[in-house]
Amino acid sequence: MHVALLGATGAVGRTMLQVLSERKLKIDRLTLLASPRSAGRSIDWGGRSWECRVAAPGVFRDVDFALFSAGADRSKEWGPVAAEEGAIVVDNSSAWRMDPQVPLVVPEVNAAAAQDRPRGIIANPNCSTIQMVVALEAIRQAAGLARVVASSYQSVSGAGETGRDALRAEVGGGAAEGSPFARPIAGNVIPQIGDFDEEGWTGEERKMINETRKILSLPDLPVAATCVRVPVDVGHSVQVMAETERELSVDEARAALAAFPGVIVADGAAGYPTPRETAGRDEVFVGRIRKDPYLPRTLHLWVVADNLRKGAATNAVQIVEELAGA
Amino acid sequence: MHVALLGATGAVGRTMLQVLSERKLKIDRLTLLASPRSAGRSIDWGGRSWECRVAAPGVFRDVDFALFSAGADRSKEWGPVAAEEGAIVVDNSSAWRMDPQVPLVVPEVNAAAAQDRPRGIIANPNCSTIQMVVALEAIRQAAGLARVVASSYQSVSGAGETGRDALRAEVGGGAAEGSPFARPIAGNVIPQIGDFDEEGWTGEERKMINETRKILSLPDLPVAATCVRVPVDVGHSVQVMAETERELSVDEARAALAAFPGVIVADGAAGYPTPRETAGRDEVFVGRIRKDPYLPRTLHLWVVADNLRKGAATNAVQIVEELAGA
Repeated sequence: MHVALLGATGAVGRTMLQVLSERKLKIDRLTLLASPRSAGRSIDWGGRSWECRVAAPGVFRDVDFALFSAGADRSKEWGPVAAEEGAIVVDNSSAWRMDPQVPLVVPEVNAAAAQDRPRGIIANPNCSTIQMVVALEAIRQAAGLARVVASSYQSVSGAGETGRDALRAEVGGGAAEGSPFARPIAGNVIPQIGDFDEEGWTGEERKMINETRKILSLPDLPVAATCVRVPVDVGHSVQVMAETERELSVDEARAALAAFPGVIVADGAAGYPTPRETAGRDEVFVGRIRKDPYLPRTLHLWVVADNLRKGAATNAVQIVEELAGA
Repeated sequence: MHVALLGATGAVGRTMLQVLSERKLKIDRLTLLASPRSAGRSIDWGGRSWECRVAAPGVFRDVDFALFSAGADRSKEWGPVAAEEGAIVVDNSSAWRMDPQVPLVVPEVNAAAAQDRPRGIIANPNCSTIQMVVALEAIRQAAGLARVVASSYQSVSGAGETGRDALRAEVGGGAAEGSPFARPIAGNVIPQIGDFDEEGWTGEERKMINETRKILSLPDLPVAATCVRVPVDVGHSVQVMAETERELSVDEARAALAAFPGVIVADGAAGYPTPRETAGRDEVFVGRIRKDPYLPRTLHLWVVADNLRKGAATNAVQIVEELAGA
């Protein structure tokens, strides 16, 4: 198997290489693609050294799977090229996610959708969306879904290595030159991830809203989300309010979540998940499972995952595994 | 006027002294009360030095207002004593808040309730509740209230000086001995403030739920809250979803909030509030005013305030000002 990686030196790209080395895919050949600034760098993987190159026409010939994580502009540019050259593209950017001809896939939720890819491109969803829809699908299968309201607590690594650098610099007392955040992030929380639209919602919030509806195939589901950056290195947390179609007890919800693939329930006597404890793990952790104090068909959940892994790299690699029959 | 302060050396007590020095109350005499550990310490205030003493029977005679912020146990012990000795008690702990004979007061919302105090005690609400109800009352007056769902981002100073010390120690790379938090707080978020009850809600969440209903005199209002500790020194943020009885546009909501006493709207072109920017201020800051993407009678707000000031000291001093006719 020949795998290409566009954005091999970024926060997600490096995590993809790590995840690929841990899992069962048999990869014979890697093509590592990066910006001109990183071209020529060598990366050790699978007992060999691989040199990073700049993407160019022809580079995706003989590639089975092309994993993209170099931002939406690069994905728009190289997605059709890679597909035309015969690769199946799994794109981690937002470029193709809402294209009706591109499936948006979380394997635990809608693996079959990856089979229908008229453009040869499969989109990997937004990080906070992935972890939320895994938990929501478990609840939906048990009791249906009528409404979702989410508040997120998102780590700086969601903004890439520059986000991590900014937090480290600020915590160290320095100025964060080149910070991707609109305000200081150390000792602060910032209710803005992405740009604002005319209705006052940010890009990240619209992703959580629109992508959740698409992945769950519930185009009319009312979803609202408020996305907030917090001074955490790795790991997103999402407080999810889920209104169900039928009443579900806490025990039933806990059982549905515990039986769902890729979910670890840490609740009640088992405590609750926090991002620092779950960083480095591939699963989605769910705790604080509660029934609304007054509304019987409403559940409240606390959902935590490693945004670089399940929120990006692991989910993309799982899509490849599905298609490779691994 | 003679004012007594129980808990004069704590995070809130010191902020009370600061706020008292900034505002218009004419105070002739201070009685500073603290733990045996702090007794004997002198504190400069109003151009004089005042010595901290340990509370004892008789100490509240001739006291006009006794501000308590030394925890629920001390408030239960000394509240009735101070009232019996003739002081009006304004208690910042949770001890008396849900007592039907104790008014729970946020002056911008229900100042008149402070006049009816059969026990001689007035309760100052929970910090995150105060800032939320100020925003909710503005919305309620404009369009009624049908439901509230909140997610909080609460600073470590809500756990007192030991909380601030713990975060500082962890950020400095040390172990946080005596940390009040169940997990590391630096680089983390912790979805637990207080103890869990049988339904899985924490003490802090029950406070937000029950106190909101009491302050607003809406005993049947469905309220849910998830309270999360974040690595911020001072300043709580609350994401509030408010369902109204009548539809309200974003412009109408913004106007209602801007016209409400004690509220500063920082929204749209004016940006949004963050805790680091609002620490040290007495007002409640509201931004991110949005209509739900799908449900016309639902608003989403981002509400930030200094938890030591409006969330505690300033609100208590405002209650005294109301009663003193200042």
